[in-house]
Amino acid sequence: MVHQQQLRFSTDGRGTYNITQQISDVISKSGVMTGICQVFIHHTSASLILCENADPTVRTDLDAFMKRLVPDGDSLFKHQDEGPDDMPAHIRTILTESSLSIPINKGKENLGIWQGIFLWEHRTSTYKRNVTVTVIGE
Amino acid sequence: MVHQQQLRFSTDGRGTYNITQQISDVISKSGVMTGICQVFIHHTSASLILCENADPTVRTDLDAFMKRLVPDGDSLFKHQDEGPDDMPAHIRTILTESSLSIPINKGKENLGIWQGIFLWEHRTSTYKRNVTVTVIGE
Amino acid sequence: MVHQQQLRFSTDGRGTYNITQQISDVISKSGVMTGICQVFIHHTSASLILCENADPTVRTDLDAFMKRLVPDGDSLFKHQDEGPDDMPAHIRTILTESSLSIPINKGKENLGIWQGIFLWEHRTSTYKRNVTVTVIGE
Repeated sequence: MVHQQQLRFSTDGRGTYNITQQISDVISKSGVMTGICQVFIHHTSASLILCENADPTVRTDLDAFMKRLVPDGDSLFKHQDEGPDDMPAHIRTILTESSLSIPINKGKENLGIWQGIFLWEHRTSTYKRNVTVTVIGE
Repeated sequence: MVHQQQLRFSTDGRGTYNITQQISDVISKSGVMTGICQVFIHHTSASLILCENADPTVRTDLDAFMKRLVPDGDSLFKHQDEGPDDMPAHIRTILTESSLSIPINKGKENLGIWQGIFLWEHRTSTYKRNVTVTVIGE
Repeated sequence: MVHQQQLRFSTDGRGTYNITQQISDVISKSGVMTGICQVFIHHTSASLILCENADPTVRTDLDAFMKRLVPDGDSLFKHQDEGPDDMPAHIRTILTESSLSIPINKGKENLGIWQGIFLWEHRTSTYKRNVTVTVIGE
């Protein structure tokens, strides 16, 4: 059994957006009881992560870490056409995930109690981000 | 054909634990000859990697690299509730994998000769870590 | 429906190689209209990424970033048997992907307009790199 659905998210600048509920809804709709759910983002400047979902400072710290590791406007980068956050956004995407794969058990995403699914926008402006969810199983 | 199984591992402090044999056993049990095997860890402070399986200094060096990149007790981090290794454990998890996906061929995991499947515990204490293995194929 | 195929690529030193067309051909051959495509590389010194496919300076910058983050011949590393690029190649592999998972829609890989599939060779010599593509769906 295969179920596939497109989702679209509006982002309002760099940061993490919890999309666990939207993914959960697609799994419910699919009717799959046991299998896997693939979440795929169709961009090279935004990515997906599984992250601690309780304390928001985890995600603030995560962003602070990335800011230090991949600084905006670093003179190392030649690709600056779209601004100082352009190349760092590509690198942040590559260091994290374009695709998450989550097990489905008893018709639900089988996440750990502290795991949330987050879309991580790496650009500083507003964007529309396309995500495809594919559910496979029985 | 879908086969799903829960595994539980005890970890004894920060380090890498070779779990290739346990994953291989689940694939054998599944009866799937051609397909994919998803290995998923239900935590935000421990992760999964495919790593060189022959020379243990590879994994020592890997840990030394991570210690330098994401130092314990870094003053950058506000999330320190559970100790100096708490936030670094979340970041290490995000920089590596919560989910591995491995091809199955002729009823076995089709890994390269140097590839082993490792659970990477990022906390310094002992833990129980839950892993779900989902095998899909025919 | 499951379709699996082995591919082999020759690499000529460190750098990124666009393999999108070869993956696309396997998907076409599979006959799967809706599903997922798993691309797996059987090595610990070469990896896979989804990266911006238009401006080649993105990939030059990416390599410059990795050179700074994981320098060849770093005195931190004990595993130097195969040369100064040996351990950095393992770390670069672990920081990126050994496996990509891409949705299939209407019989084609459903990538974003700027996303290309690249094999990233991390060693400085020439190699043969084995990749398995597994397509699952209906």
